[in-house]
Amino acid sequence: MRRSIATVCVSGTLDDKLAAAAAAGFDGIELFENDLVVSPMAPAEIRKRCADLGLSIDLYQPFRDFEAVPPELLRANLERAERKFDVMAALGVDTVLVCSSVHPAAVDDDDLAAAQLAMLAGRAADRGMRIAYEALAWGRHVSTWDRSWRIVERADHPALGLCLDSFHVLSREVSPAGIAGITPGKIFFLQLADAPHLSMDVLQWSRHHRLFPGQGAFDLPGFVKLVLAAGYDGPLSLEVFNDVFRQSDPARTAVDAMRSLIALEDRIAPHLPPAPALTGHAFTEFDVDGRSGPELRSALRGLGFAHTGQHRTKPVELWEQNSCRIVLNSAVTQPGPAMISAFAVTSEDPARSLDRAEALLAPAHPNVREPGEAELAAITAPDGTSVFVTPPGDEWRSDFLPTGAGAAPTGLLAVDHLGLAQPFDHFDEAGLFYHSVLGLDHLATEEYAAPFGLMRSRAVADPARSVQVALTVALLRRGEWAPAVADPQHVAFTTTDIVATAAALTCPTLPVPDNYYDDLAARFALPDDVLATLRRHGILYDRDPSGGELLHLYTPVFGGRVFFEIVERRHGYTRFGEPNAPVRMAAQRHRRLTSNPSSGTP
Amino acid sequence: MRRSIATVCVSGTLDDKLAAAAAAGFDGIELFENDLVVSPMAPAEIRKRCADLGLSIDLYQPFRDFEAVPPELLRANLERAERKFDVMAALGVDTVLVCSSVHPAAVDDDDLAAAQLAMLAGRAADRGMRIAYEALAWGRHVSTWDRSWRIVERADHPALGLCLDSFHVLSREVSPAGIAGITPGKIFFLQLADAPHLSMDVLQWSRHHRLFPGQGAFDLPGFVKLVLAAGYDGPLSLEVFNDVFRQSDPARTAVDAMRSLIALEDRIAPHLPPAPALTGHAFTEFDVDGRSGPELRSALRGLGFAHTGQHRTKPVELWEQNSCRIVLNSAVTQPGPAMISAFAVTSEDPARSLDRAEALLAPAHPNVREPGEAELAAITAPDGTSVFVTPPGDEWRSDFLPTGAGAAPTGLLAVDHLGLAQPFDHFDEAGLFYHSVLGLDHLATEEYAAPFGLMRSRAVADPARSVQVALTVALLRRGEWAPAVADPQHVAFTTTDIVATAAALTCPTLPVPDNYYDDLAARFALPDDVLATLRRHGILYDRDPSGGELLHLYTPVFGGRVFFEIVERRHGYTRFGEPNAPVRMAAQRHRRLTSNPSSGTP
Repeated sequence: MRRSIATVCVSGTLDDKLAAAAAAGFDGIELFENDLVVSPMAPAEIRKRCADLGLSIDLYQPFRDFEAVPPELLRANLERAERKFDVMAALGVDTVLVCSSVHPAAVDDDDLAAAQLAMLAGRAADRGMRIAYEALAWGRHVSTWDRSWRIVERADHPALGLCLDSFHVLSREVSPAGIAGITPGKIFFLQLADAPHLSMDVLQWSRHHRLFPGQGAFDLPGFVKLVLAAGYDGPLSLEVFNDVFRQSDPARTAVDAMRSLIALEDRIAPHLPPAPALTGHAFTEFDVDGRSGPELRSALRGLGFAHTGQHRTKPVELWEQNSCRIVLNSAVTQPGPAMISAFAVTSEDPARSLDRAEALLAPAHPNVREPGEAELAAITAPDGTSVFVTPPGDEWRSDFLPTGAGAAPTGLLAVDHLGLAQPFDHFDEAGLFYHSVLGLDHLATEEYAAPFGLMRSRAVADPARSVQVALTVALLRRGEWAPAVADPQHVAFTTTDIVATAAALTCPTLPVPDNYYDDLAARFALPDDVLATLRRHGILYDRDPSGGELLHLYTPVFGGRVFFEIVERRHGYTRFGEPNAPVRMAAQRHRRLTSNPSSGTP
Repeated sequence: MRRSIATVCVSGTLDDKLAAAAAAGFDGIELFENDLVVSPMAPAEIRKRCADLGLSIDLYQPFRDFEAVPPELLRANLERAERKFDVMAALGVDTVLVCSSVHPAAVDDDDLAAAQLAMLAGRAADRGMRIAYEALAWGRHVSTWDRSWRIVERADHPALGLCLDSFHVLSREVSPAGIAGITPGKIFFLQLADAPHLSMDVLQWSRHHRLFPGQGAFDLPGFVKLVLAAGYDGPLSLEVFNDVFRQSDPARTAVDAMRSLIALEDRIAPHLPPAPALTGHAFTEFDVDGRSGPELRSALRGLGFAHTGQHRTKPVELWEQNSCRIVLNSAVTQPGPAMISAFAVTSEDPARSLDRAEALLAPAHPNVREPGEAELAAITAPDGTSVFVTPPGDEWRSDFLPTGAGAAPTGLLAVDHLGLAQPFDHFDEAGLFYHSVLGLDHLATEEYAAPFGLMRSRAVADPARSVQVALTVALLRRGEWAPAVADPQHVAFTTTDIVATAAALTCPTLPVPDNYYDDLAARFALPDDVLATLRRHGILYDRDPSGGELLHLYTPVFGGRVFFEIVERRHGYTRFGEPNAPVRMAAQRHRRLTSNPSSGTP
């Protein structure tokens, strides 16, 4: 199907928006009137620019407050429409979106609405144009798709049809099932937007919180199937009002948008290489420099890791304990804090994983490698992290020459999850990336109050929980009063006996306040000896409603930006200990204060 | 009255919060449990820290989900309470906030709730403590103040009283009038928060959008009077959950909070020097450097200004046309874009204006001046701009030696308003500052979609509209994809004949797209010749619902950050042409693109 995007979805002026839509591969656009009005390009020039960019203009929108009004207002409205038809003629666009009236003078009379819309359609038809009528979810009288359809049926004019917008339909309680029965040819346009379920005024919900398909909670595949069942063959067009997208790089946003449509189409009629099962974390790679490297090495040693392998040709070290593997890469060109530059996951079928990624606009880039090295291709996640996809087994280890060093294990068995703080503009993009490209599922989104502002967290994982990535973001972009480590990253390792592991560690762990344990005692009926053990080792505790338990501990921040976590999951606990994240943040802040009392930012 | 602040109102860990509250002059705090739990300070240590800082701990909060539960849950809840009483004893705090239950096991039974709360109060009394019961606006069964009061009355225990929170009371439809009739001594605690009127889920409204008194739409003076009428003599305590305050500098936020309380008390029982009437803009001062200075001079000349005065001792120039006065200050120490560093308003009684400012934590700082110069004292607005307050008349001009130059007037008569983009963290603080310190009124807040993100705008003005400042802010803090001139500032001048003025100008004005006029023609029934005139001169147009009209035009950005506007107000138009702001932004962006096509950011 053809793919379109409304210019309102992305930031910038019309030049920016058209360039972004074309670069992301869209076939067409919906031209949002405000973008035209503020543009110095004449309509004919916009037409030419779009043609040059390979974009059709599929819809002009919106035309507001037209129908069911007294005669003198109708006259003015028809005059207003003629002016817009002039603009549309110059643009070469034949369909205009007329959304249901919110005007105080509009009356509650479907016959009148139908008659006046038929009159408008007649005027449009005279100019080779047509009217797509849409029920706004907050329309004064017409606010549901079925009522807009009754009016269009009643008007019975060939130049009058429906515009269906998934948000307006799915945000209301009226079932969309009947859409499949709409007369073929009468759905003139289809607009798609996802959204989280929110309990708020529907207009504000629509204006600020729409998302691209797959980023929210609506059943868009089901909705589109109903529309297709009614014979719709126009474009799938995105119309997403979103506070973040309105102010982030339009080129990035447009690619995110396109990925959402490709993934949606694949859910409706699978055509992409299916996402192979991911079976585990192969390794996690940190970039380190002369300052952060020694800190990380010392921390790993204290965690019971050994430096087991040395890369044949590069200053890259492999550190291991059981199935936990950390790669320290000192071949960085710029000094800076340590960071997770890459992680590798094992895939049942790496080639297919990469084919799927490419089809979803995340093409693999080959790792720079020397002759004889294992071939590893990576895709780039929205935060810039490279994601390597490797076959099961240890082929990638062949690049490392064994050092012969052995670990002094502390019981760390495997990677439980990675924690990656996301750049503010790309949180929803990241969720969609991991879901569509790698086939990971979104887990529940959590919000919590942290010492330096509200946080949002959303994890992605495969069904078997072999690969888990916890994504976090601040609810507001950080300003000057931001924590010194505003975007920390971490690796969490599993153990089956966290107390034994804690006792065996020789690296520093994060001190947990006594107040925390006093509160724990009040909240949960934990036996005194358990509580004493937790307290002694600085182990945090969480319990879910089904009785699942998490015991976990943190290290301080090493190398400027990274830390480690050790988790023991009991009785099927599946979350990530979010309620304890503020405790960690405060403790990391306190540690910084006490080690450097004069530091400015928290 | 004593003034308190809940630790949840400001950002940081407990150390940060206590330091900020003390520095801003608060007498006490409400200790929010989460802040205690994540603190490494033991309760006794917190008690000592507070005492050292001169802060009492007036309330411990919250204790949730206590009342109206089955027996075994009651037992567990009482046990939980005893643990909290232990903590309170160590802290030396005697009152705990118990908020109405949201627990699924809570039953709808006021007698049971009263009996269990009486039992809890008995336990508290045994330890010299007391219970302040509060109806959460979203409580499962108890969600209004009158119901919470019925339960407290029924329980009839001396250690059980009410906590009233202005948000929970005023966000509901139940009238607060009856509060004045509550038995004296039974309101144990008073929490204050303002909020804008929002149509959304009340819990989300409360968690994210509370404001300090005077920053929102609630009638807090009226509310507090009712509480005082019931004999309340405890502290006025702020409890404000706000996404911005949670992540901005706590020291700043605490001062903003304190100012809000001082101003609120003054509205209840006036005690501050009343704000004298402001009668006009005396001058507006720009900092310029070797690069921006010539650009500004050339622009002013083109606007019909003349360089009429030269400062006796400093590289400071006075430019004038009628009552429009611009001061260009080249004595800047750091080069950078031009900016409005100061503006002067005339006051009926400057000394009283300054006394009031000082009482509201905005102390005047004397201008650095040489012997014989006019004395001018300035207060600092939240965005760093100096606000001079001068007597009527031209005393301040005595520092300038006349140059003898005469203007070639273009009809600019006076300053209509200043436009000051505000730093993200300080928008609400700025509104309160201008309102409380200078006595300006808030006009309506407007939100609009602009090319680089959503914008919020709120103007402040005196009743006679002699002094007007339009404050704007982006709804999200700007990121990398931000307009090159992200925080522009401007001065708008009035004319009574904008067409004649436009024809007389010799500086560049901002080109307005033809599309804008085509749309104007569709939106308003403007005569063709009027439209042609507007189009010819690049004059924008707005009309308000009462028929007031604004005709205005903009200049491009000069000196990197500032521009000018010329406005003609007709038939009582009182707004600031906000619907046309996106046209200006797009045109300024376009101008930048065409003059420097390779520039990175918009």
